[in-house]
Amino acid sequence: MFRKTDEVKVLRDPVHGYIHVDYDVIWKLINSKWFQRLRRIRQLGGAHMVYHTADHTRFSHSLGVYEIVRRMVTEVPDIAGALDEREKITVMAAGLLHDIGHGPYSHAFEVITKCPHETYTCMIIEQDPEIRGILEQTAEGLSKDVADVIRHESSNPILPQIVSAQLDADRMDYLLRDAYFTGTKYGEFDLERILRVLRVRDGRIVVKESGVYAVENYIMARYHMYWQVYYHPIARSYENLIVSLFARLRDLEHEGKLPETVPVFEPLLKGRQLTLEEYFVLDEYACSYAFEMLRKAEDPVVGDLASRLLDRRLFDYMEASEENIGKVTELLKKAGLDPAYYLARDGVRQKPYEPYSKDAGNAIWVRMHGGNILEISYASNIVYSLVNGPQISDDRVFFPGEITGRQSA
Amino acid sequence: MFRKTDEVKVLRDPVHGYIHVDYDVIWKLINSKWFQRLRRIRQLGGAHMVYHTADHTRFSHSLGVYEIVRRMVTEVPDIAGALDEREKITVMAAGLLHDIGHGPYSHAFEVITKCPHETYTCMIIEQDPEIRGILEQTAEGLSKDVADVIRHESSNPILPQIVSAQLDADRMDYLLRDAYFTGTKYGEFDLERILRVLRVRDGRIVVKESGVYAVENYIMARYHMYWQVYYHPIARSYENLIVSLFARLRDLEHEGKLPETVPVFEPLLKGRQLTLEEYFVLDEYACSYAFEMLRKAEDPVVGDLASRLLDRRLFDYMEASEENIGKVTELLKKAGLDPAYYLARDGVRQKPYEPYSKDAGNAIWVRMHGGNILEISYASNIVYSLVNGPQISDDRVFFPGEITGRQSA
Amino acid sequence: MFRKTDEVKVLRDPVHGYIHVDYDVIWKLINSKWFQRLRRIRQLGGAHMVYHTADHTRFSHSLGVYEIVRRMVTEVPDIAGALDEREKITVMAAGLLHDIGHGPYSHAFEVITKCPHETYTCMIIEQDPEIRGILEQTAEGLSKDVADVIRHESSNPILPQIVSAQLDADRMDYLLRDAYFTGTKYGEFDLERILRVLRVRDGRIVVKESGVYAVENYIMARYHMYWQVYYHPIARSYENLIVSLFARLRDLEHEGKLPETVPVFEPLLKGRQLTLEEYFVLDEYACSYAFEMLRKAEDPVVGDLASRLLDRRLFDYMEASEENIGKVTELLKKAGLDPAYYLARDGVRQKPYEPYSKDAGNAIWVRMHGGNILEISYASNIVYSLVNGPQISDDRVFFPGEITGRQSA
Amino acid sequence: MFRKTDEVKVLRDPVHGYIHVDYDVIWKLINSKWFQRLRRIRQLGGAHMVYHTADHTRFSHSLGVYEIVRRMVTEVPDIAGALDEREKITVMAAGLLHDIGHGPYSHAFEVITKCPHETYTCMIIEQDPEIRGILEQTAEGLSKDVADVIRHESSNPILPQIVSAQLDADRMDYLLRDAYFTGTKYGEFDLERILRVLRVRDGRIVVKESGVYAVENYIMARYHMYWQVYYHPIARSYENLIVSLFARLRDLEHEGKLPETVPVFEPLLKGRQLTLEEYFVLDEYACSYAFEMLRKAEDPVVGDLASRLLDRRLFDYMEASEENIGKVTELLKKAGLDPAYYLARDGVRQKPYEPYSKDAGNAIWVRMHGGNILEISYASNIVYSLVNGPQISDDRVFFPGEITGRQSA
Repeated sequence: MFRKTDEVKVLRDPVHGYIHVDYDVIWKLINSKWFQRLRRIRQLGGAHMVYHTADHTRFSHSLGVYEIVRRMVTEVPDIAGALDEREKITVMAAGLLHDIGHGPYSHAFEVITKCPHETYTCMIIEQDPEIRGILEQTAEGLSKDVADVIRHESSNPILPQIVSAQLDADRMDYLLRDAYFTGTKYGEFDLERILRVLRVRDGRIVVKESGVYAVENYIMARYHMYWQVYYHPIARSYENLIVSLFARLRDLEHEGKLPETVPVFEPLLKGRQLTLEEYFVLDEYACSYAFEMLRKAEDPVVGDLASRLLDRRLFDYMEASEENIGKVTELLKKAGLDPAYYLARDGVRQKPYEPYSKDAGNAIWVRMHGGNILEISYASNIVYSLVNGPQISDDRVFFPGEITGRQSA
Repeated sequence: MFRKTDEVKVLRDPVHGYIHVDYDVIWKLINSKWFQRLRRIRQLGGAHMVYHTADHTRFSHSLGVYEIVRRMVTEVPDIAGALDEREKITVMAAGLLHDIGHGPYSHAFEVITKCPHETYTCMIIEQDPEIRGILEQTAEGLSKDVADVIRHESSNPILPQIVSAQLDADRMDYLLRDAYFTGTKYGEFDLERILRVLRVRDGRIVVKESGVYAVENYIMARYHMYWQVYYHPIARSYENLIVSLFARLRDLEHEGKLPETVPVFEPLLKGRQLTLEEYFVLDEYACSYAFEMLRKAEDPVVGDLASRLLDRRLFDYMEASEENIGKVTELLKKAGLDPAYYLARDGVRQKPYEPYSKDAGNAIWVRMHGGNILEISYASNIVYSLVNGPQISDDRVFFPGEITGRQSA
Repeated sequence: MFRKTDEVKVLRDPVHGYIHVDYDVIWKLINSKWFQRLRRIRQLGGAHMVYHTADHTRFSHSLGVYEIVRRMVTEVPDIAGALDEREKITVMAAGLLHDIGHGPYSHAFEVITKCPHETYTCMIIEQDPEIRGILEQTAEGLSKDVADVIRHESSNPILPQIVSAQLDADRMDYLLRDAYFTGTKYGEFDLERILRVLRVRDGRIVVKESGVYAVENYIMARYHMYWQVYYHPIARSYENLIVSLFARLRDLEHEGKLPETVPVFEPLLKGRQLTLEEYFVLDEYACSYAFEMLRKAEDPVVGDLASRLLDRRLFDYMEASEENIGKVTELLKKAGLDPAYYLARDGVRQKPYEPYSKDAGNAIWVRMHGGNILEISYASNIVYSLVNGPQISDDRVFFPGEITGRQSA
Repeated sequence: MFRKTDEVKVLRDPVHGYIHVDYDVIWKLINSKWFQRLRRIRQLGGAHMVYHTADHTRFSHSLGVYEIVRRMVTEVPDIAGALDEREKITVMAAGLLHDIGHGPYSHAFEVITKCPHETYTCMIIEQDPEIRGILEQTAEGLSKDVADVIRHESSNPILPQIVSAQLDADRMDYLLRDAYFTGTKYGEFDLERILRVLRVRDGRIVVKESGVYAVENYIMARYHMYWQVYYHPIARSYENLIVSLFARLRDLEHEGKLPETVPVFEPLLKGRQLTLEEYFVLDEYACSYAFEMLRKAEDPVVGDLASRLLDRRLFDYMEASEENIGKVTELLKKAGLDPAYYLARDGVRQKPYEPYSKDAGNAIWVRMHGGNILEISYASNIVYSLVNGPQISDDRVFFPGEITGRQSA
């Protein structure tokens, strides 16, 4: 019923070998303007400042998520059997498009727009004439169905579990992909094994008991990637610099002193929700160019922060104790630097895995040999220990290293 | 004598494991503004349009070349013994900086600037206050020495052979790196083995006879990377689009009709050699932003070509027979499209290895068990066959696929 | 119609990820006594004397060949379409069993038995009660059909092409597997790509023109594996030692002086064709134990050669010039060693690929874009050069290094 | 002072790239008869019954341990600085020889000999004329020094910590090697990173705080390898079969009914400590041949158990509850099978890491940024959770599956 491509299209991918496309609708979505824009958004925010090869994009990640979803709905017998063709297409499209509303610099930008990227994602799916058109021409109502997967409002609860839960195509792709492109080994886990142990029970994706080791491995991979890559202080330092620069620009805008050179930022700085057109051009290429222009801004704070971003003269950091914060504030004053822009405090905390939450999609479930289904922390002593052990956190204060006489990070 | 870093600095790299830095001068060069700019220049021109993960940069490639040079001058006993400390630093710096003058979109941009990137590289090394300063503070005359390696004018002929010859750090890094980031296996060869079989004889780097297989493998890797990646028609299609867009812009400039929005391109379009300052800002981020602005240009050719670049609606291609060119020209006329911008002809040809040339640096030499030294095509039947076999070429004509009713590439 | 296993059985394999078994007949064959015996036969003859990790077995190789066949008959649409279910099972079983008649020490043993392993393979398939029983219970006549694939006498000529031709499951598995277990990179090629470009035309497996690069790569991989692994002089030295030991034992047998300790070798040394029962026990474990016993044999030649095999004191080697052979013969006489056992001459020669032969199965065919089918040396300049270039050979004389005062190899 | 090889000898190894040998004494030890014997002892006991490619040997593992030790004593500045040349050679030799006394089938054989392999290891090092000779000719007293490392009695406590502690060359090699040859990913961890974070403080090897993640990863790798490979029930089933077969043989020996065919086993079955000569021939090849002979033994239990080992008809298994054991015993009686040989009970338990013990070598120590040294469970919340969480155990009863009507494992 749904139109296939003439022959299976394949895109070479180092993580998955190949991305396979056999539905026409998927091929058209890939070739759409908004999807191609993801080539201009890096997958990771500041991590490429730590891992110099981490320049991979949301474009390749989105293809990877699609590919894992495709394999789940065709190669996992229980899932293949639980969905009809329309649902399979819906969830493959949702996997492909789940990040289409992502802005530059990963989650740093959400702090600035004060709007989660999922909001833009759904707007684009349901309102962009091209994307919406491709979906609706394929099947009436498909654009809403796809957006419903993103919003976790699907009538079939398995669909959002496939794309975004605790053991889902999104996470599985990004761990493997980020490990590959940073060159760390921490994110590696056994995807083939996990796909083999997935089952469906009572409208819920579960893992066979014999797959518990593979899941423990995955949980540890995730945990280590958080601390070694996503929460690396240098990555956070970079992201804090971006936030500081925008804070300064917004303050200048309020004072009517915004530099002329940044038309792309204007709607953002005025604090209004961006139209899709305005949002479209806000990719990392535009931002980088804007920073280059701002380098020569009259305002010394703007010029300094923009140069730091481009030339990688990042803020240094310390543990965020009251004492340290006091000391830094003092030194900044002496150096004539405004702590509003030159001091950032940022705490992150993460457990390897957080099971307790309202909906089934937010835990990993295990089907025991005997048949009953347990939340994984009851099926795995390792996970139990991790869930009930102390939480790990990392609170830091960021500031220009020069004020202490030390080199920048 | 030369200052070392406090402890060995390491940068994680998926190709080499780690990049090791132990000289202060190298660390400072890495942190310089011009070197950091290489983060904004992709390693490959249009190949990321074929291989969606090929977003790696000249920054990581340059670090990789440096690392191979470092290993050659420390781990290969013959080379370590043939160079003094200053020469080692010279050649490590040259490896690091060899691409510092590279513009956006790889060699496509050299067609537009009509200036090989090596010219800018030497200018930056010898004239940029920061880079030159770092080098001269390390040792008087070092900036000229480093530039001399790039220019193949070193007093010690081994230095340029290390960085850029037929079996050199530059080629060895890019083959491995491009293979890794495209996900192809063609570029893989046995770097460890090659490093182990290098020797120095009569001021020339040679390979032990037992290393011939490893070199054959390397030559084949190079050959396959050319045809599968560097010369892939879709990559060339993208690069031709860029050349067409600039051709149109230059023509508009001559007519005084240049769109307002592209100040960064102005010096380029006026056909004058760019100052280092002007050249500095011309990274791929600036270009991409400029294309985004040009999308809405009044001139329909500019708008169309810019959109095609951003949305990946590339030119289709055929064999460049007279017949095909005639047919395409005809169809373009019917469609009202100017062949000056909508038809590109582009021929590439490559032998796996080309030995004959003036200087020793342009061949691979083998020391036979008996002691005599042969050019590799006389030491390897395989290479002999390749060198004396027919040359492979690929001539194509590129054009908008729509005129033939086919989809774009 | 053909019985499936309860669920897909999977065996983890580093080369293929997993081996997948879904037909009951395949599962039963794997669990048969003769197939399990392959665990006691190494894949490579003497190469583990060069590459200390090359202890992989015919058991894992046979599973790998089966897996590639399985993928060819299910994932390559043209092949899947050209065969019925019985033919698919026939060729999968043939892939699995193609080496079941292999004796110890790879091809060295065939020199001793004077009987190619294919003869035993067909005997086992058609006569062993267990194997024959499993096949005939699955479908009448299946054991003959399977053996016919081995004998290249199938009614459908595609079947033997899948298992054993120039681009077949056997070669593809062993190149990848031997590369993995020796730790060399030479044998790697892009299996996924090759599977994607296979087609069937006129009852013949062909390769799409766009797959020529992948095939060139495969041909080079094969060529390099021959010279770096299979024909490595140290591997040949080991194999020649085995042949020498058996020559001595046979001579002793003729003289009625065979040591008591080797009942397993008796039928072999008497020069008669072994029964399947006698052949069954002749695995590498039995041979190694017999060598251990022979270490203490009264006959000094036997004792010395057996000790050399076990303690890896292999023969040294030189180019097999008349002069060298003369010199070695002279030195052996002086040392009181009989050249009949202490001098081995052994020449190997190989082209990367040999196209010309009687049947279609012995060449690689390419379907050009235009539709016509060419033998690959006419479709690839590289292959043309290799086929028409000089042949590479390596003739050596092997002897105990001590006689020259040099250390053993 | 200590003699070097002419040039660095290298052995290709898939885990480490190359094994590098530059001391003459190491090269001679590798070429000794006892060391070459390790080619005939697999690294893993029964795991090759689960992972069909796990045929790697103690020979390659021993080379790998040596290589890691070599890197530790040359590339880790603190360790290189803490040892003199003789100590470095001592510990490299100890790494190489640490398993030289290993018998067949890993630890299963120790159950039979009732003698830990370390006892034989020290005997061989101190008493075998060849090994002892090589060591003593290198330096007087060296054989005792090497054996002292194995016995954890070195005067310098760092030496045994390098070879065998909680984060040592032995464990690091076997995790990586077993992961590679089984094809599982669980055993992978970041060896390069760990080598980079090692330090020496107060005569103790410690890890820099920034290396804690790498160590957590290593601990998890170890944990998963235990449960997925070393303690896999099928591997244990195979090992239990060996123990049962020997139990039966010993009982027959007591009754004076030992089959004639197994002279190699005799000293073992008579329960006396084996001489080195007797022990030498007891490799896996001899055992396998002996099993083949025993297949036809008059005693039906011996014949059956031997056939099961060779043909992989292993015992099935269940949880070792009292109820299950009762049921199995009952069924065995009905089937006329003696539980003494046909029922095995086997419990394993493991924590990912066990810190508390008498000596420093049995914990992993972390040097915190501030300078103080903590046992890792106090430096890592993850490890703390694991150490203080519930212990994981697995108790099984093994028996012939036929008695329950189920297939064998």
